[in-house]
Amino acid sequence: MLFHVEMTVNLPPDMPEEQAAEIKATEKAYSQTLQQKGTWRHLWRVAGSYSNVSIFDVRDNDELQRIISGLPLFPYMEIRVRPLCRHPSSIRDDDS
Amino acid sequence: MLFHVEMTVNLPPDMPEEQAAEIKATEKAYSQTLQQKGTWRHLWRVAGSYSNVSIFDVRDNDELQRIISGLPLFPYMEIRVRPLCRHPSSIRDDDS
Amino acid sequence: MLFHVEMTVNLPPDMPEEQAAEIKATEKAYSQTLQQKGTWRHLWRVAGSYSNVSIFDVRDNDELQRIISGLPLFPYMEIRVRPLCRHPSSIRDDDS
Amino acid sequence: MLFHVEMTVNLPPDMPEEQAAEIKATEKAYSQTLQQKGTWRHLWRVAGSYSNVSIFDVRDNDELQRIISGLPLFPYMEIRVRPLCRHPSSIRDDDS
Amino acid sequence: MLFHVEMTVNLPPDMPEEQAAEIKATEKAYSQTLQQKGTWRHLWRVAGSYSNVSIFDVRDNDELQRIISGLPLFPYMEIRVRPLCRHPSSIRDDDS
Amino acid sequence: MLFHVEMTVNLPPDMPEEQAAEIKATEKAYSQTLQQKGTWRHLWRVAGSYSNVSIFDVRDNDELQRIISGLPLFPYMEIRVRPLCRHPSSIRDDDS
Amino acid sequence: MLFHVEMTVNLPPDMPEEQAAEIKATEKAYSQTLQQKGTWRHLWRVAGSYSNVSIFDVRDNDELQRIISGLPLFPYMEIRVRPLCRHPSSIRDDDS
Amino acid sequence: MLFHVEMTVNLPPDMPEEQAAEIKATEKAYSQTLQQKGTWRHLWRVAGSYSNVSIFDVRDNDELQRIISGLPLFPYMEIRVRPLCRHPSSIRDDDS
Amino acid sequence: MLFHVEMTVNLPPDMPEEQAAEIKATEKAYSQTLQQKGTWRHLWRVAGSYSNVSIFDVRDNDELQRIISGLPLFPYMEIRVRPLCRHPSSIRDDDS
Amino acid sequence: MLFHVEMTVNLPPDMPEEQAAEIKATEKAYSQTLQQKGTWRHLWRVAGSYSNVSIFDVRDNDELQRIISGLPLFPYMEIRVRPLCRHPSSIRDDDS
Repeated sequence: MLFHVEMTVNLPPDMPEEQAAEIKATEKAYSQTLQQKGTWRHLWRVAGSYSNVSIFDVRDNDELQRIISGLPLFPYMEIRVRPLCRHPSSIRDDDS
Repeated sequence: MLFHVEMTVNLPPDMPEEQAAEIKATEKAYSQTLQQKGTWRHLWRVAGSYSNVSIFDVRDNDELQRIISGLPLFPYMEIRVRPLCRHPSSIRDDDS
Repeated sequence: MLFHVEMTVNLPPDMPEEQAAEIKATEKAYSQTLQQKGTWRHLWRVAGSYSNVSIFDVRDNDELQRIISGLPLFPYMEIRVRPLCRHPSSIRDDDS
Repeated sequence: MLFHVEMTVNLPPDMPEEQAAEIKATEKAYSQTLQQKGTWRHLWRVAGSYSNVSIFDVRDNDELQRIISGLPLFPYMEIRVRPLCRHPSSIRDDDS
Repeated sequence: MLFHVEMTVNLPPDMPEEQAAEIKATEKAYSQTLQQKGTWRHLWRVAGSYSNVSIFDVRDNDELQRIISGLPLFPYMEIRVRPLCRHPSSIRDDDS
Repeated sequence: MLFHVEMTVNLPPDMPEEQAAEIKATEKAYSQTLQQKGTWRHLWRVAGSYSNVSIFDVRDNDELQRIISGLPLFPYMEIRVRPLCRHPSSIRDDDS
Repeated sequence: MLFHVEMTVNLPPDMPEEQAAEIKATEKAYSQTLQQKGTWRHLWRVAGSYSNVSIFDVRDNDELQRIISGLPLFPYMEIRVRPLCRHPSSIRDDDS
Repeated sequence: MLFHVEMTVNLPPDMPEEQAAEIKATEKAYSQTLQQKGTWRHLWRVAGSYSNVSIFDVRDNDELQRIISGLPLFPYMEIRVRPLCRHPSSIRDDDS
Repeated sequence: MLFHVEMTVNLPPDMPEEQAAEIKATEKAYSQTLQQKGTWRHLWRVAGSYSNVSIFDVRDNDELQRIISGLPLFPYMEIRVRPLCRHPSSIRDDDS
Repeated sequence: MLFHVEMTVNLPPDMPEEQAAEIKATEKAYSQTLQQKGTWRHLWRVAGSYSNVSIFDVRDNDELQRIISGLPLFPYMEIRVRPLCRHPSSIRDDDS
């Protein structure tokens, strides 16, 4: 089941650089593990911003919540979630 | 080059059903041709709405404009475009 | 799987009364069938408005989309969907 | 009498972890007492967020105010309240 | 129990004058009956607009809904409802 | 001359409790003096919020400005002012 | 007593030209009478729009309401009203 | 050439009182010099707020920018600028 | 003097095609005349929309108003105007 | 390929002046290098604000992202990006 998730990062300008670097490294590892498992299907940067657009493939809403609230950057992000489904004009049954 | 496009359809409630059906059929054919060519990479329905989220892969802004303004439903849609690029945490060079 | 759905009805003021009455009657029957099946778990009127707040219990996003886009009032409503899940402070495993 | 309440938590990023943990524990106990009494009828997490949707069953507006302003997280939440009532299409007299 | 209600009237510009006059006359009579019963406690025009601010004193949310949805101008108004209660600094127990 | 004023209090979470308590006490006294003089005609809490709705009866805009900018909580509030006047359907000449 | 009023005109595109011309002529005469009396102190066009910014000098809110609701274009305008008063840094007692 | 400028002051609540007083005094002097020269034609307080509405008469956009960015409170204000011109219904050629 | 102008065209869907074509042709001629004179310095389409971004070089606000209100599509456009001036980091004195 | 970029600078009021001056100097040099290369085609100040409007000419979305995220002021700016293309009424093939 697919979800469309937009995330915008707002790190406080006075966060020490080391701390920021550590959070970002943990976030990257967390994200890449989920990408390799196929749960985080797509991950794009919105050009000219500190935002991404992501497609998640999860079993249900609970799994989505576990994954998103587990993001190391979760406390510093504005997040918008929208459920996706097959579009009647799509030529693919599973447009993941 | 990828673009993230959101479209919401607002057909006037008093449009004759035949006319609406014809526009939708033309739109579907138009969309499927572009999907088969690989230009319209993804097409999802946002669940519970008359909106879609799409990913286009085009040569440049001009091609994007030609494709979107050529949509049969173009005069009846609210459209939002955002340029995408590779995310530094993505595990794929070409996340299309 | 639960979804929180808000619907606001905007019937065009010049719709003939008979037509409006017929749509509303069909909508009521449609809604009550889904309530009896347990799919439409809750249905409340927001006091002082022509809006409702609903809780749907569906198998997945696709079923949600089929149900909502099948609403007789669908072309006349503004709709907002949010996926729900168990709250960590809830005393019920299945707060439906 | 039912009320629909949405709460979004915004803890300041620099709040010491212990203090945050204590507030959250008090909030959880407070919430569960009200759930057991039947006043806090429903409590859902909005998936992918630090927000909840709740249904309260109170005697009047004053009781609602006492309960919400007494929430340990009250100073850190954005809150939206809407009065609910029976929907004419509901199949239940008391859709709590 | 008090509610704060804001109403903005949007009559379609092409409504025949007679029809508009009749709706407004019915609305006025409806409003004055409720004022005399004490249900519609206050009614002010917002200067420079076609909006009013009203205070209703009702038994519960259901009565509020019956009254507001029964307004002859209801289909032509944008309405916002907020529940009120005693302010801790008020010098009156019943500030109606 | 009546004015409709909405105030939402936003105290910084890190303000020392004593300081907050003192400002609130001064605000309460200030408000009650104005209520006794009849200038602050109504004062309601919006249920479930740290907001109030107030009706002021002042000689002119200047007096309104003096009173509002003199509120001890003024630097911490979001404020919206709207001028009121007699509604043509009101049954009272002076609906204060 | 001064009020700051912004007006944006939205004439329906299908209004017959003669009717529009007549309303505008009546509006112009109405406005110029009030300007000559000193009630409509200032009237500016916002460049590049069909909006104006105006300063009214009236006895009270009731007079403001009478004047604005009497504008021939009133049913076709979006209007925003703000009460003005002397600014503490102004070098004029009566900055009209 | 006239411009309509709205300014809302947002001083950080933790700015030392002396510093705030000094900025405000410099701002007042700066403003009064410009008023005396005729550049700052009008200056009104919006009643019940820490906002003003101003009319500037400048040679061109560059002069407007120099004046506004030179305001001592500039870093603490939200500012909105709109170009003005003669209104066709105005009875004055130079409605300054 | 430069102005930044954004225009979004909203033609009513039921406007006869011939009428629309004629307005657009007149608009195009009007725009090209102004481009040739150097008044309409830049004209870009926003990709994926029926909007443009334009830079105008005019003598003053009055000339801007005359040009924009004279656009054949003026009654059908949403327009936003912002005055521009030299940026302190620009390498050109006249960045037209 | 052209992009329209709006940037608004929000430096924290408590940033030490030296640090602010250094960031601004680096930003200026960075911007002027890109202007000389022809990548940053236009740069205007919006009069009365701490915002600019810029036109970038880049090879693709990736280059745009590299340039914008490399801006020394990037962490302190609100940024909006819109892709541009040739307008059908433009008299220039390459309106850069």
